[in-house]
Amino acid sequence: MIGIGVIGYGYWGPNLVRNFSLASGMEVKVVSDLRPRRLEQVKARYPSVKITTNHAELIDDPNIKAVAIATPVSTHFDLAMAALRAGKHVWVEKPLTSSSEQAMQLIEEAQRRNLVLHVDHTFIYTGAVRRIKELVSRNELGEIYYYDSVRVNLGLFQYDVNVVWDLAVHDLSIIDYVLPCKPIAVSATGIGHIANGPENIAYLTLFFEGNMIAHLHVNWLAPLKIRRTLIGGSRKMIVYDDLEPSEKVKVYDKGIDLDYSEEDIHRLISINYRTGDMWAPSIDNSEALLVEAKHFIRCVEGRDTSLTDGHTGLRVVKILEAATESIKQQGKPFELARYGGCH
Amino acid sequence: MIGIGVIGYGYWGPNLVRNFSLASGMEVKVVSDLRPRRLEQVKARYPSVKITTNHAELIDDPNIKAVAIATPVSTHFDLAMAALRAGKHVWVEKPLTSSSEQAMQLIEEAQRRNLVLHVDHTFIYTGAVRRIKELVSRNELGEIYYYDSVRVNLGLFQYDVNVVWDLAVHDLSIIDYVLPCKPIAVSATGIGHIANGPENIAYLTLFFEGNMIAHLHVNWLAPLKIRRTLIGGSRKMIVYDDLEPSEKVKVYDKGIDLDYSEEDIHRLISINYRTGDMWAPSIDNSEALLVEAKHFIRCVEGRDTSLTDGHTGLRVVKILEAATESIKQQGKPFELARYGGCH
Amino acid sequence: MIGIGVIGYGYWGPNLVRNFSLASGMEVKVVSDLRPRRLEQVKARYPSVKITTNHAELIDDPNIKAVAIATPVSTHFDLAMAALRAGKHVWVEKPLTSSSEQAMQLIEEAQRRNLVLHVDHTFIYTGAVRRIKELVSRNELGEIYYYDSVRVNLGLFQYDVNVVWDLAVHDLSIIDYVLPCKPIAVSATGIGHIANGPENIAYLTLFFEGNMIAHLHVNWLAPLKIRRTLIGGSRKMIVYDDLEPSEKVKVYDKGIDLDYSEEDIHRLISINYRTGDMWAPSIDNSEALLVEAKHFIRCVEGRDTSLTDGHTGLRVVKILEAATESIKQQGKPFELARYGGCH
Amino acid sequence: MIGIGVIGYGYWGPNLVRNFSLASGMEVKVVSDLRPRRLEQVKARYPSVKITTNHAELIDDPNIKAVAIATPVSTHFDLAMAALRAGKHVWVEKPLTSSSEQAMQLIEEAQRRNLVLHVDHTFIYTGAVRRIKELVSRNELGEIYYYDSVRVNLGLFQYDVNVVWDLAVHDLSIIDYVLPCKPIAVSATGIGHIANGPENIAYLTLFFEGNMIAHLHVNWLAPLKIRRTLIGGSRKMIVYDDLEPSEKVKVYDKGIDLDYSEEDIHRLISINYRTGDMWAPSIDNSEALLVEAKHFIRCVEGRDTSLTDGHTGLRVVKILEAATESIKQQGKPFELARYGGCH
Repeated sequence: MIGIGVIGYGYWGPNLVRNFSLASGMEVKVVSDLRPRRLEQVKARYPSVKITTNHAELIDDPNIKAVAIATPVSTHFDLAMAALRAGKHVWVEKPLTSSSEQAMQLIEEAQRRNLVLHVDHTFIYTGAVRRIKELVSRNELGEIYYYDSVRVNLGLFQYDVNVVWDLAVHDLSIIDYVLPCKPIAVSATGIGHIANGPENIAYLTLFFEGNMIAHLHVNWLAPLKIRRTLIGGSRKMIVYDDLEPSEKVKVYDKGIDLDYSEEDIHRLISINYRTGDMWAPSIDNSEALLVEAKHFIRCVEGRDTSLTDGHTGLRVVKILEAATESIKQQGKPFELARYGGCH
Repeated sequence: MIGIGVIGYGYWGPNLVRNFSLASGMEVKVVSDLRPRRLEQVKARYPSVKITTNHAELIDDPNIKAVAIATPVSTHFDLAMAALRAGKHVWVEKPLTSSSEQAMQLIEEAQRRNLVLHVDHTFIYTGAVRRIKELVSRNELGEIYYYDSVRVNLGLFQYDVNVVWDLAVHDLSIIDYVLPCKPIAVSATGIGHIANGPENIAYLTLFFEGNMIAHLHVNWLAPLKIRRTLIGGSRKMIVYDDLEPSEKVKVYDKGIDLDYSEEDIHRLISINYRTGDMWAPSIDNSEALLVEAKHFIRCVEGRDTSLTDGHTGLRVVKILEAATESIKQQGKPFELARYGGCH
Repeated sequence: MIGIGVIGYGYWGPNLVRNFSLASGMEVKVVSDLRPRRLEQVKARYPSVKITTNHAELIDDPNIKAVAIATPVSTHFDLAMAALRAGKHVWVEKPLTSSSEQAMQLIEEAQRRNLVLHVDHTFIYTGAVRRIKELVSRNELGEIYYYDSVRVNLGLFQYDVNVVWDLAVHDLSIIDYVLPCKPIAVSATGIGHIANGPENIAYLTLFFEGNMIAHLHVNWLAPLKIRRTLIGGSRKMIVYDDLEPSEKVKVYDKGIDLDYSEEDIHRLISINYRTGDMWAPSIDNSEALLVEAKHFIRCVEGRDTSLTDGHTGLRVVKILEAATESIKQQGKPFELARYGGCH
Repeated sequence: MIGIGVIGYGYWGPNLVRNFSLASGMEVKVVSDLRPRRLEQVKARYPSVKITTNHAELIDDPNIKAVAIATPVSTHFDLAMAALRAGKHVWVEKPLTSSSEQAMQLIEEAQRRNLVLHVDHTFIYTGAVRRIKELVSRNELGEIYYYDSVRVNLGLFQYDVNVVWDLAVHDLSIIDYVLPCKPIAVSATGIGHIANGPENIAYLTLFFEGNMIAHLHVNWLAPLKIRRTLIGGSRKMIVYDDLEPSEKVKVYDKGIDLDYSEEDIHRLISINYRTGDMWAPSIDNSEALLVEAKHFIRCVEGRDTSLTDGHTGLRVVKILEAATESIKQQGKPFELARYGGCH
């Protein structure tokens, strides 16, 4: 039984505590938060869990083997570093840190101490994204042409990070997991509508080796809630709509076929449009966070390696940094570190 | 009765001939096309219309007062210039020309000869866009924050122009008509999936003075057909979905209100989210092309000025040029000519 | 080449003339209508077609081998009978006649003279309904449990027939074609909202031998246009939405499985809910009327038998009669003639 | 502070306990259920609430002023009667009882003892239904023409009641609340697909004085979840879609206008179709059960009268009885008790 402590009981913390409580093999021992009011709610709901306003107490607790950090991004680094130094395995909310420099230090520290450093990229653990990964891996889509995501709604505005660090991080983690290659450059644009506030609308284009492109649209100020991703491939195309109650993933046998034999005197290739069946595979509806909690337990037990480890978190933070810089320069492209070939 | 000749009877030409025939005050006299087969269809459908494979014959026809040009973009300039020099009023399909240099020459020629130079930016004449213009002009939306459009589907791939020149031109013409300011810079990204073919996916960000941004997503290789525009304002927001059979334009009383009085010690402004009624005004369903044909007649008769004249066409072509250049440089921003203040 | 004459050039007649003109092996020779204005439109569009306000002239024309009747229902019988007696093959708009008595007489006359009597149940010739028929015939759905259709919109109110004779006729023809059994009784309710006018809302339940039921909702006074049919089977279920631009037919691997082994002490059977994949087969988008015209040609040539012959038309009219009677008696059920077993 | 006991902690009981706990002025004292396992969940979640497997203990508890009954329908009568006889105010889940005879006895008992008898017709307390009631009361729709509801999904099959008693009860309670008149007759059809099981599909038509009709479609075996109600009026029409996350209620300025002045020689009235704006009023999103709990508290305190009292429950049960009888006779209409004029 792995004892875990949760730092931060704001928006996401309650979901962590609830799922950690449900996952067999793990027990929530302590929850800390700076606000006594939030802790009262822990007490009412989970009478056996200890509460404290002092996170240091939690980190030092010998009954605790792992620490989950669900606080504002700017505090992730210090808390995670303290937990690692205290010999705890660490679960950190997304994004991993405020800078790639910080992320690299955490990775190093975890590696040196042989501890798990896990980033909560929740979407990776949904049935929908796992299905998409499977379809891509089995080459159902053929060559991937593009990934296009719209993730917009009204609110919640953040004060300390812009909409890219809040929302695009989801798509970047999905892209990191699902696509066969890593991006090599990014161009981003965006704007803020509150004086001195961070950007609340942003558009990111990711460039890859070869023929692939990705684009993200994130917006805190939209009249509709949209969560729709199109993935185009040479053989098939996916529409992933996370708001659909069922049929979240639809696979379209649509596309173009080039007919070089009919290449005419003007050297024009004949294009045939293909519109075949559509198919919506059934999706595992398990709560992603519970799937992820179970995965984390196996990682702590040394029986598995985190799908969303520090390196994943670092790659995503690097793109967030570059995108934020690009926004300031109206879309000027920024190169990203190259992670070798595609798989 | 204005006699008109139509050059080009391919995809769009038949729509022109049909609507010009319906508009009282105008009569289609001649249709030319290089393909005799297309002309046979004219003959079967409109027995009284003259046909010819020689457009020069049409341009020189003294019974014709106006010429409509519905041929590939690369031929627009030569044909329009010839028509103007023959003293004809000219209607040109979008985009006006292949380059801004050409557009400027046509404008000059038309001005010198006091002839109408009208660009067929059809969307401006739809009931939906006219309604949106009216709502914006009446300041129903408050300060405009952003314009975001998605215009994607499967096909038709073009050989001579990329997807920006084919599809984004529609949104650029709507932006030119509806928004109170003109863009001052553009950053664009895109990719082509056919070897040596033009870009079939593109993303454009337009920057404006002040707080406004516009973004266009155009794609010939999408599994779904989407035609959806979000326009965000400080007071209200519009969702314009051109594929809705009714309720194409929805006005949402949604947004944020900033409460400076509650500015806290951390200098954080309190944000209140507003979600009020939604309202879908009834839309005039008249065919846009017929509305436009009648407008063109009034222009030729000297009783009105074209809403989509050469200058409009030029502004759009300039953005298309800059966007195409930006795509080649992975989103590097390009400045646009400044057209003075906002209205 | 089969010469055909079309009587009635109102709402549907133009579609007949257009498709008969496209179908090779058939030629429209004459069109008659009582309104000279309508005939002018024929002349403008089809210069080579003869026009007349006297349908008798058309029926007697020796160049004509078949007559299509697209006039108000109350006139179908007289016109069809006259055409049969003149030795012409006959195509009649739906519903076949105003009464089953009339339908029987037409069937007899056609049989005696060995002429084709074809009813235009257009939906049978759509790609969607043909796909559904195929799925049902291949037993993809298992045992059919129910057929439920909603066919509502605003208008067009008819003066001479109620909404059942106008709209339910479509579903009754689909049911006749697709379902393995014929209904044995009907209960119907409805109401009219115009003084002395016919019912503009109606609900029909059809009873079948065994475990199957069908229900139709038809309405001329609805705020939305809905064309949605659910077909439930023991193995799979279909949703057929005729307003979907693509994916009109969706096949759901959903249902219940009964687990008798777990029958408990209360004799309750355990029910397991099954929610598997969804699949939308690609649908042939050919215009139904053209498919039907080609089929009719083969019938006239003696190479095929009409899928929607007089007997089909009669069965549908009998249900319409019984439903109308049931409406008057607030849902009192009426038995229908039994057509033997199921197939 | 009103002490309340809840009998039954199955599907709905937890919602009652949660909302009763949230409503100030009320305190859940005891929960009873026959299954100790269910009671453990109460204990874990609400440590201060007493639990018992013996409901008699709960009913006799002097700390309890009101009893809520959330058990199978067949047990409602005995439990409610026992509670009333013990002098408790009573909240009963829908439908009130298994028969109208039982409902009448409960009403009488409550009246004699001057106790509140409240039926949990939850939908009446939703923001959407309250909005619709308001629109109808203000005569926004004009004369009501029809009420048409579809309430279908896959599961949950019940063993002791058919789909009418399970699902149609919702619509009947809304109709009772919203429409200006009470129904005077019912015709219903339906079918069951499990041997010896209750009907899992049913269709009900309700007849009213004058020009109004209502129809309900309920189905436990549908591939889609649909919760859509159309309400047609002479001036406006409503579409109420309970599955819409926002814009649940849409008001359409659509309909027909009769033009008697143009009454022609055939005595045909001219019908004009009206399609104006659509409007979706913002809806109060408060949880219905909390609104209802607060209302119940006011009733127990004698400061209000239950909107959904025993008489409401009785009227609904009477329709359920008649509909079930009508289903057995394939739609034969059954008269209902007349409740005087319309309001």
